[in-house]
Amino acid sequence: MLMKNIYFDHAATTKPKEEVIREMLPYLDERYGNPSATYGLGMQNKGAIAFAREKVAMGLGCDAKHIYFTSGGTEADNWALIGVAEKNRMKGNHIITTKIEHHAVLNTCKFLERKGFEITYLDVDKQGIVSVENLANAIRPTTILISVMFANSEIGTLEPIKEIGKIARRKGIIFHTDGVQAYGQTKIDVDEYGFDLFSGSSHKIYGPKGIGFLYIRDENMISGFIHGGMQEKGMRAGTENVAAIVGFGKAAELAQINLQKKEMKKQKLRDYMVERIINEIPYTKTNGDYKHRLANNVNVSFSFVQASNVKTMLDNEGIYVSTGAACASREQYPSHVLQAIGCSEDEMQGAIRITVGEENTKEEIDYFILKLKEIIDSLRRKSLSYGVKMKLYSEK
Amino acid sequence: MLMKNIYFDHAATTKPKEEVIREMLPYLDERYGNPSATYGLGMQNKGAIAFAREKVAMGLGCDAKHIYFTSGGTEADNWALIGVAEKNRMKGNHIITTKIEHHAVLNTCKFLERKGFEITYLDVDKQGIVSVENLANAIRPTTILISVMFANSEIGTLEPIKEIGKIARRKGIIFHTDGVQAYGQTKIDVDEYGFDLFSGSSHKIYGPKGIGFLYIRDENMISGFIHGGMQEKGMRAGTENVAAIVGFGKAAELAQINLQKKEMKKQKLRDYMVERIINEIPYTKTNGDYKHRLANNVNVSFSFVQASNVKTMLDNEGIYVSTGAACASREQYPSHVLQAIGCSEDEMQGAIRITVGEENTKEEIDYFILKLKEIIDSLRRKSLSYGVKMKLYSEK
Repeated sequence: MLMKNIYFDHAATTKPKEEVIREMLPYLDERYGNPSATYGLGMQNKGAIAFAREKVAMGLGCDAKHIYFTSGGTEADNWALIGVAEKNRMKGNHIITTKIEHHAVLNTCKFLERKGFEITYLDVDKQGIVSVENLANAIRPTTILISVMFANSEIGTLEPIKEIGKIARRKGIIFHTDGVQAYGQTKIDVDEYGFDLFSGSSHKIYGPKGIGFLYIRDENMISGFIHGGMQEKGMRAGTENVAAIVGFGKAAELAQINLQKKEMKKQKLRDYMVERIINEIPYTKTNGDYKHRLANNVNVSFSFVQASNVKTMLDNEGIYVSTGAACASREQYPSHVLQAIGCSEDEMQGAIRITVGEENTKEEIDYFILKLKEIIDSLRRKSLSYGVKMKLYSEK
Repeated sequence: MLMKNIYFDHAATTKPKEEVIREMLPYLDERYGNPSATYGLGMQNKGAIAFAREKVAMGLGCDAKHIYFTSGGTEADNWALIGVAEKNRMKGNHIITTKIEHHAVLNTCKFLERKGFEITYLDVDKQGIVSVENLANAIRPTTILISVMFANSEIGTLEPIKEIGKIARRKGIIFHTDGVQAYGQTKIDVDEYGFDLFSGSSHKIYGPKGIGFLYIRDENMISGFIHGGMQEKGMRAGTENVAAIVGFGKAAELAQINLQKKEMKKQKLRDYMVERIINEIPYTKTNGDYKHRLANNVNVSFSFVQASNVKTMLDNEGIYVSTGAACASREQYPSHVLQAIGCSEDEMQGAIRITVGEENTKEEIDYFILKLKEIIDSLRRKSLSYGVKMKLYSEK
């Protein structure tokens, strides 16, 4: 049995769906007009953008007017934090976030610190969940923004967003969530959660790269991010990436079809995978909360191995998994998320993130487990510490 | 004779070439890996980006390491101005630019003014050319940046960039040029011109929308613009828009093939068009410098008509022209460029920008002139002021 190209890195990016590419193609080709041009060739594209905006808004249960297209989730996070900081500096200079945010949030916070803002980075517990009480206690009279992610990109943990939203609303503090891992994956209603700002991305939901959005409840909360022409109501200038916007619209529309059914399917596959890994591979531990987590994510630490070796050997078998958020995976540091949840050195070194998608099958998982067992076994045989452990065990 | 879809708005955007789309397609489809992922599916895309960067660099005669991809020309302009302002605030707060820059520069300057920066907006002469002497006189000890566009997007005028570059270098001031209208249209060598920063865009040179670049001579001159992962050496974070980058690379490569021959062809077509318009349509005047201008641009004012009516009637004939920069064309204000060169109300109202491309033909121009004459004639017949003028003339 040879199965090639089994993709288990859906949290990093996804393969655009055929229908998505098909809808994009005319806008790369004959529908090339500049949407700001007032002749037919341009205006038809203005219409296509409006239609896509409606579809993207469906994923948040909001009106399309709140959706502002950006070049991706990272830009949306930057805009949310820098835009609120700019606009509300007179009100205060304090921002609350967590230690396990994506680097798009954390590095923007560091940038704002250099500009005189004060940032509270909240701890999380062993499961990666931020304490609502700690968050409430961190609020100061100068707090202008709370930014807590919807779901963690490495360990999939869902944060207590509804409770945080209630606190933010009660205190009159702007509430942003990095929803890149959650948008189009699970049912989200902005009003139910009380978001003021929500960052989303296309390429995590079978849409093209290079396009995302920031949901903005009220334009008065935030400055514009890119200055120039009147695109995106003058808040985010630049000729619109029409093909990508149209593709994102299609992907967002498709994501909503049988959303909960697909979510359950992914969860079932994931749970089957976790059960087999835990039962069949010794010295293995899952990271993150088992209940409050994204349906598609498992993060598992294999003792006595280097995750990068596991990944490379799986790659040779045509199986793609990750050792952390893709954007950070070339950095030499251990994962800031695994550090924050108190993983040991051994647990961090051997941590693999496996994120399933709609198209994955039970057969793929079976093949993956087969190969994974072989690989872990062969790596452990070469591990000195594993050898020592086994020797001690056999001598008992 | 019926010719449909004659496109004369190449300064607004261009139709991506077949070869460009063909190169992009695999990266929208099976080559979907995240370039930051360290398995094969990801790493091959890192390679594709590096290859595209080399091709884009060719258009500036520079090393690829100076090219930083952005989501477009507007973002590149924002980055240049805001990034230099951020980084050099301790050195000074004064920036010099001109009154005829693109809104991506002008509105970013307005944003910086609100943050305490002082901006000198230099006048231009009747041809739209900034005076090098005035520029030199505007320099203060606190001047940290000079930003003057390579060529104007509305009237095509080429600015005395080489002289400005020399002054900037002599004074140790960072020099940025918005090269969006010039990149890939004419031969450019960064060292010859002395640029420190240069903004370029893909969709003006038969590449896809949603991708551009900022050339940065020295990273120490400027802050990063989008914070997050380590993409673009950590200066511009966010998952790379691989397909668009690859498409831009191809477009940049194609632009360099027979660059001067194509430039001469466009100039010849343009000159033929101008000659016929001026000779065959009375009460007509060209805007901008006739000698120092882009090969593809003509901006012409027809007295006694509203340009928007001309444009709409041409649109009905399948001919696309513009009444100004596309990004500004929905705004109700008259063109800031035509105002700056001292156009009268009548000249501004009747101004049309026609920008030819590689694929345009003499036959298209002949058909355009035929229709243009009919349209101008029919509009003038309905014009009260034209009627009065004609009556006065016949009574003389």
